[in-house]
Amino acid sequence: MVTWHAIGVDVGGSFIKVGLVGSDGRLLHKLIRPIEKEKGFQHFLSLLENMVLQLLHETKQSSRQIKGLGIGLPAFLDREKGLIHQAINLGWQNIDVKEELEHRFPWPVQMDNDANLAALAESWRGHGQGKNPLLCLTIGTGVGGGVVIDGQLFHGFTNMAGEIGHLPVSSRMWTCHCGKKGCLETVSSGTGLLRLAQDGLQAGLASSLQKERLTIQGLFHAQKQGDLLASRVLEEAGEALAEALVIVSLVLNPERILLGGGVIHAAGDWHWQIHQKVQAKGLPRAVAGVDVLPALLGNDAGMIGAAALFLTRGGGLE
Amino acid sequence: MVTWHAIGVDVGGSFIKVGLVGSDGRLLHKLIRPIEKEKGFQHFLSLLENMVLQLLHETKQSSRQIKGLGIGLPAFLDREKGLIHQAINLGWQNIDVKEELEHRFPWPVQMDNDANLAALAESWRGHGQGKNPLLCLTIGTGVGGGVVIDGQLFHGFTNMAGEIGHLPVSSRMWTCHCGKKGCLETVSSGTGLLRLAQDGLQAGLASSLQKERLTIQGLFHAQKQGDLLASRVLEEAGEALAEALVIVSLVLNPERILLGGGVIHAAGDWHWQIHQKVQAKGLPRAVAGVDVLPALLGNDAGMIGAAALFLTRGGGLE
Repeated sequence: MVTWHAIGVDVGGSFIKVGLVGSDGRLLHKLIRPIEKEKGFQHFLSLLENMVLQLLHETKQSSRQIKGLGIGLPAFLDREKGLIHQAINLGWQNIDVKEELEHRFPWPVQMDNDANLAALAESWRGHGQGKNPLLCLTIGTGVGGGVVIDGQLFHGFTNMAGEIGHLPVSSRMWTCHCGKKGCLETVSSGTGLLRLAQDGLQAGLASSLQKERLTIQGLFHAQKQGDLLASRVLEEAGEALAEALVIVSLVLNPERILLGGGVIHAAGDWHWQIHQKVQAKGLPRAVAGVDVLPALLGNDAGMIGAAALFLTRGGGLE
Repeated sequence: MVTWHAIGVDVGGSFIKVGLVGSDGRLLHKLIRPIEKEKGFQHFLSLLENMVLQLLHETKQSSRQIKGLGIGLPAFLDREKGLIHQAINLGWQNIDVKEELEHRFPWPVQMDNDANLAALAESWRGHGQGKNPLLCLTIGTGVGGGVVIDGQLFHGFTNMAGEIGHLPVSSRMWTCHCGKKGCLETVSSGTGLLRLAQDGLQAGLASSLQKERLTIQGLFHAQKQGDLLASRVLEEAGEALAEALVIVSLVLNPERILLGGGVIHAAGDWHWQIHQKVQAKGLPRAVAGVDVLPALLGNDAGMIGAAALFLTRGGGLE
C-alpha cells in the first residue's frame, strides 16, 4: 500500500510557503521564502520549482508518493478552470495557473483562496474537527471566510459563500474597497482596527497609543494595560464582529466559529469577548451550543489546507 | 420493476392536505379537510388515517407501492427522533409523531417543517430545478426559509439554517415574538405588512385603505390603484426583504431565491421589485446571475416536498 503525501503551497503577499503533508494531516517539513513580487510571475514559478525540489530532497520523498500539489492564492480565481482573474497584492492578472504548474510538475494541481483553505485545514486537523457546519474567519488586512459542510468546502454559486467581511454591520458607514458602506471589514479587520484607533486619537481621546506608531500588537497590549481608547476600539470592532456572527447563525447555523489570521494571533482572549457577545445577542435556538474559538493551525493552516485538497474528500476528488 | 409512490401530508393551522405523489414528482391526487384543532391530537390521527385510506381507495393504489409517508408540520421538531417539541398554532406539545404514525400505517414516516419541505419541492419539481444552492422563502403569517444544497435539505447545526425571518433588518425596531427587535418578519410577513398599514393609517396618512377591513389582497390591490400608503408599505417591506437577501447572498450565496406563501400568491409582481432592489444593493460578485422569482408549486408544495423525503435523495435515505 502506498502512503500518500501531498504538497501544500501557501502564497501570501510577502512569502511563499511550501509544505509536505502526510495523509494524516501532519506537516512533515516546510520551507519559507520571500516572494520578491516585483520580479513577476515567471520568477515566482522558478522559485516555487526550486523550493519543491529542495523540499523533496531534504525529506528524501519520492515524487511518486505525491498525490498532488494544492495551492492557496490571495486572488479572485476560477477554481474549476484553474485561472487567476486578479491577484491585486501580487500584481498578477488573467493567468492560467493550473496549466503553468501542471507543465512544471508531474502531479495534478488544485487551487482555492487562502481563507477557504484555512477553513478546510481547521476542519481536517484543527479546532473544527467533527464540527458541522464550520465557519472559519481569517482576520488580517481584510476579513475572509471559509465554510465547510460535511467535511467539504462550500463555495456557493459564485464562490462568495462565507464572505462575511462585507456584511453591513457598522454604523460608521465608512466606504469599503468593495464600494459599499459599513462592511464588517471596515472596522474589524487589522486595517479597520488601526483606523478606529487613528480616528479616536484624531478626536483627541486620551490614550497611551501614539499616532505614528500604531500596530495591532500595540493596540491589544494597550487594552491589557487598561488604555481606554484601545478598549473602546476593541469593543466597537467586537460588537460588529458579533453582529455579523449572529447573522451567520440564522443563515448557515454553524456548529463552531473559528477566528484565525494575523489579528487573532495578537489578540489574547478577544475571541472570548466575542463568544459572549454572540451568546448575548443571538437568537437562543440558533446559538445554543455554538462556540467561538481561536483557530489552531496558525501560519501552517494554508499549507495543510492546500494539501487537504488531495488528501481529504474536501477536495471533491472521489 | 416497482413504480414507487409516496404520500405527502401537509399540516397547516387550518387544514390537513394529503396527496399521492409519483416518483416523477407529479401530484396524482389530493384531499383537503379542516383540521378541527380543538379536538386534539388523537382526533387528528383518526382524521389522517381516514384521509389516507380514502386517498388509496380513490386512486386504486396498492399500499405496497408506497415507499413512505412524509409529513410537514408547523412546529419546532426533532426530525431525527420524530418528535414535536411544540406546535403553537395547534396546541400540541411533546408528541412522538413518528411512532404514532408508524403504529397506524405500514410505511416508514419522515417529517420536517413546512418551509423546508416547500424548498425541497421547488428544488425537485418547481422553479428551483438545477439551481444550487437554492433558498426558498415562505411568506405568510411569518417568514420561513428553507435551503437546498446539491438537491438535499440543509438544516445547519440546530435546524436554524435559512431562518432569515429573524435577520435584524428593520429600523422600526418592533419587538418580534422571538424576543428580538427589528426582525425581518416584523415588517415583511403578512402580519408585518398589515401592521405597517395600520401604523400609517394611525399616523393619519391619506389612503383608500380602511382600518377595520385591512387584508393582504386589499393592500396589493390598493397599490395597483396608486394608493400612496399601500405603495409606501410595500416599499418599506420590500427594502427590508431585499436587505435580508443581500445578507444571504454573502453567507450562503444562493443561485436562486424563490418567494412563496400566502402573501406572495396575492402579490402580483412584487417579487420583481425585490429582485431589482437585490441587484442594486448587493455586492456585484455575490448577486450576479442570481434571480428572485415566485415559487411555482403554490399550495401543493408542502405535499410534494413531504413525499420528496422518500422519492429524492433529499430525504437522505440512500
